[in-house]
Amino acid sequence: MAQTAEARITPRAEDYPKWYQDVVREADLAEPAKVVKGCMVIKPHGYAIWEKIQRELDNRFRATGHENAYFPLLVPQSFIQKEAEHVEGFAPELAVVTHAGGEELEEPYVIRPTSETIIGHFFAKWISSYRDLPLLLNQWANVMRWELRTRLFLRTTEFLWQEGHTAHATHEEAMEEVLRILHLYGDFAEGHMAMPVVRGRKTASEKFAGALESYCIEAHMQDGKALQAGTSHDLGQNFGKAFDVRFQNEAGELDYVWQTSWGVSTRLIGGLVMTHSDDDGLVLPPRLAPIHCVIVPIYRNDEQRARVLEAAETLRRELSAIDLSEPDARYRDFLEVVIDDRDMRPGAKFYHWERRGVPLRIELGPKDLEKDQVCTKLRVDTPVQSGKAFVPRAEFVATARKLLVDFQDALLARAREFQARDTVVIDTWDDFVAAFAGEKSVFAWCHWDGTPETEAAIKEATKATIRCIPLPGQGPDDGPGTCIKSGRPSAGRVLMAKAY
Amino acid sequence: MAQTAEARITPRAEDYPKWYQDVVREADLAEPAKVVKGCMVIKPHGYAIWEKIQRELDNRFRATGHENAYFPLLVPQSFIQKEAEHVEGFAPELAVVTHAGGEELEEPYVIRPTSETIIGHFFAKWISSYRDLPLLLNQWANVMRWELRTRLFLRTTEFLWQEGHTAHATHEEAMEEVLRILHLYGDFAEGHMAMPVVRGRKTASEKFAGALESYCIEAHMQDGKALQAGTSHDLGQNFGKAFDVRFQNEAGELDYVWQTSWGVSTRLIGGLVMTHSDDDGLVLPPRLAPIHCVIVPIYRNDEQRARVLEAAETLRRELSAIDLSEPDARYRDFLEVVIDDRDMRPGAKFYHWERRGVPLRIELGPKDLEKDQVCTKLRVDTPVQSGKAFVPRAEFVATARKLLVDFQDALLARAREFQARDTVVIDTWDDFVAAFAGEKSVFAWCHWDGTPETEAAIKEATKATIRCIPLPGQGPDDGPGTCIKSGRPSAGRVLMAKAY
Repeated sequence: MAQTAEARITPRAEDYPKWYQDVVREADLAEPAKVVKGCMVIKPHGYAIWEKIQRELDNRFRATGHENAYFPLLVPQSFIQKEAEHVEGFAPELAVVTHAGGEELEEPYVIRPTSETIIGHFFAKWISSYRDLPLLLNQWANVMRWELRTRLFLRTTEFLWQEGHTAHATHEEAMEEVLRILHLYGDFAEGHMAMPVVRGRKTASEKFAGALESYCIEAHMQDGKALQAGTSHDLGQNFGKAFDVRFQNEAGELDYVWQTSWGVSTRLIGGLVMTHSDDDGLVLPPRLAPIHCVIVPIYRNDEQRARVLEAAETLRRELSAIDLSEPDARYRDFLEVVIDDRDMRPGAKFYHWERRGVPLRIELGPKDLEKDQVCTKLRVDTPVQSGKAFVPRAEFVATARKLLVDFQDALLARAREFQARDTVVIDTWDDFVAAFAGEKSVFAWCHWDGTPETEAAIKEATKATIRCIPLPGQGPDDGPGTCIKSGRPSAGRVLMAKAY
Repeated sequence: MAQTAEARITPRAEDYPKWYQDVVREADLAEPAKVVKGCMVIKPHGYAIWEKIQRELDNRFRATGHENAYFPLLVPQSFIQKEAEHVEGFAPELAVVTHAGGEELEEPYVIRPTSETIIGHFFAKWISSYRDLPLLLNQWANVMRWELRTRLFLRTTEFLWQEGHTAHATHEEAMEEVLRILHLYGDFAEGHMAMPVVRGRKTASEKFAGALESYCIEAHMQDGKALQAGTSHDLGQNFGKAFDVRFQNEAGELDYVWQTSWGVSTRLIGGLVMTHSDDDGLVLPPRLAPIHCVIVPIYRNDEQRARVLEAAETLRRELSAIDLSEPDARYRDFLEVVIDDRDMRPGAKFYHWERRGVPLRIELGPKDLEKDQVCTKLRVDTPVQSGKAFVPRAEFVATARKLLVDFQDALLARAREFQARDTVVIDTWDDFVAAFAGEKSVFAWCHWDGTPETEAAIKEATKATIRCIPLPGQGPDDGPGTCIKSGRPSAGRVLMAKAY
């Protein structure tokens, strides 16, 4: 813990994109690599959040029957070209290896932008019968897409992700998988990241290159924009046909497999930042916080210091035995507690840890020792606790886990309020244009006539896009209506917003 | 669990390299990618072993104060050239990205063969004072080295590894780190992989390109060859100077940092295979086994089947609650228990799970139910248990954890015996040549005069190399002597063997 000068965080109202950059930098999550175009270095505090995301998702994938594997980073260039839509979507973003081992390669390789093609190749080797199905694999990996405009976590040329790839005997089973994962993502986002999402289906123009249909979770950011936080694709038999993945079904006939793919990435960390953080810096829900609690010792002289530090260390040990995870979880999430005894004013320490999103702060001074109490403060005022509280020490230790779990729930409720405040039903084009004027964005539930032409016209005029066609229960569900732009009939409202 | 035809495993005595290939294939650990030169696909059973290796090492890195981070996959080509020895060592093995986003790049990138250079660049940005030191980072990543001759796990063009990178204020502190990690690796190899190792220092010709000194753990394989299983490098100030990583020390003077780097890779899985496996296939120590126990139900009719399966499921549930990890471990290693109720003869099932290295097999039939017992068999006969045992059911469940821990210890003892059998002290050149004739190899403790010329001559004549100069207590420690090849004085014996 070196003492570094901390810079100002631009308020959200002043410049939201600058605020985001400032929060990421001051929380020490990541920095632009600069020397490698569009890449970032994920620093320990950011990487620790990613590890917590990984562990929880991995448990959930495992519980639903998936196994992890690892496929090569490089993909023969010709593989990308085997599925027509896929190559059209990804060709402009590829990084190409043309030389290796001191020689020019006969066929160049591309660095995987995603792995449907190379995995399709192996599926064809491994699958021959319905008894080999379903095949349910997942891979944790780095991928690369050469983007022109990049932003830390939200869009980087290299990013870390997981990509699930499954093969099934029927379209029905594949669709069950697509939706199982969509809900797994949604439940994770809400239950673990405290980030509310809308679950839905993409329009044809927004779907994955090579999929029949793409499903997504869309999260609300505090500036009213949407973040596509996870996708689950129904690939149909497109890659099965491109890579000749055939199996003998129970009737003895040869058929192509039905595939799915799905992924979330380090982009989730960007979503986490923009869902919860404030003008004082990062806010982290306890289940994803690398450090749960900081103890700041307060003293005026060496004698006090010795006593306070001893008590702080005892408290740290007791808190560190508390496990936030569920009793049968494979990964134990013991509380990580830091005692900050640097030679600095307490106020500067509060400021330091606030910016890093530490959920719980404890001040401990001679008076607290006398009264056998602790002074606690949560990173954000919520109905759980507002401002400082003075709690008997034993009671605090006994209820610390509950305090953090309640704080997690309060952050979710608060994020739902942010989202509700920005969510509107819009029925006229004038209101729509006004809602998206300049940099503004909202979560607008509107009617759309279902055509790509109207979709393009709306985007052209306002920069708002159709984020998703909601699954039942995810939108207003108020039946058919009239397209906001064309006036033609619409089957139901869709979610429109500007997007990251 | 599809029913796949299983092929013969070539006996070790007949063709050791072929045996290795067969074991890896039949255990379904990995397969050559073929369409991507020298790469492999790590299949679920192999990847699950890697995950267990990762979790345990990661806990140990964390416990010694290291934090994980992530640096870019691509490295500007010019970076590799900044350290003279480093570029000489790695240039022939680089994969080069020359095009991206549809355009030729101004400066090509190489895919990281290791990350000292790119990390050196960031260390220079992050370190300015002794207060920023030590900086103790680790990265879990894929790397690429374009090798001509590859072998699953042992040498592949892409591999997965961890690379630690640390910066210190003094050479002394850096050396403490180098040895701390060397022993961490050694303790992990022996305590968790049941793979005995010799800890030592590399000769100048075998050290890492760019290091002052490299330290290593060398493991004994059943064919008498050595496997370099982990390395820990004293980088001195070489990369500090190449990347201008300077800091102000406590005296206020500017100095270059002292760095270390260290790594182990998926190669460990190859070592694991060759340490324990036999002519029946893979043998896994329980602490790294993805599946700890298989229950094979035995029955003659549907009525028996129903009863036996019900009992098997109850047993599976009880065993699954057993945790092999230590009480305060962050990762719980609950027993993974499979009931194999496929429509096959029991013998074929035994054979199937033996090849996959499952440590414990339970047969459960109507007679066992009557007698309230289970029939158990460990994957390898050891003093812990030889052949089948019939144990009262309750006693078995109560002692299952101990049985597996004892089996783990027995595998380590057995591996030490293999090593001892192949370890010899050799004092004459004739004996040395005889020991390494043809394909033969042993762990030979010999005197060497300390010159690269003699080292090269020994290798030229026998293909044996100096695996390491042992740390105190790791070799015979019997004082100075006479070089086996040149007859010149030697300070002490070194370990010689053919190597993977």
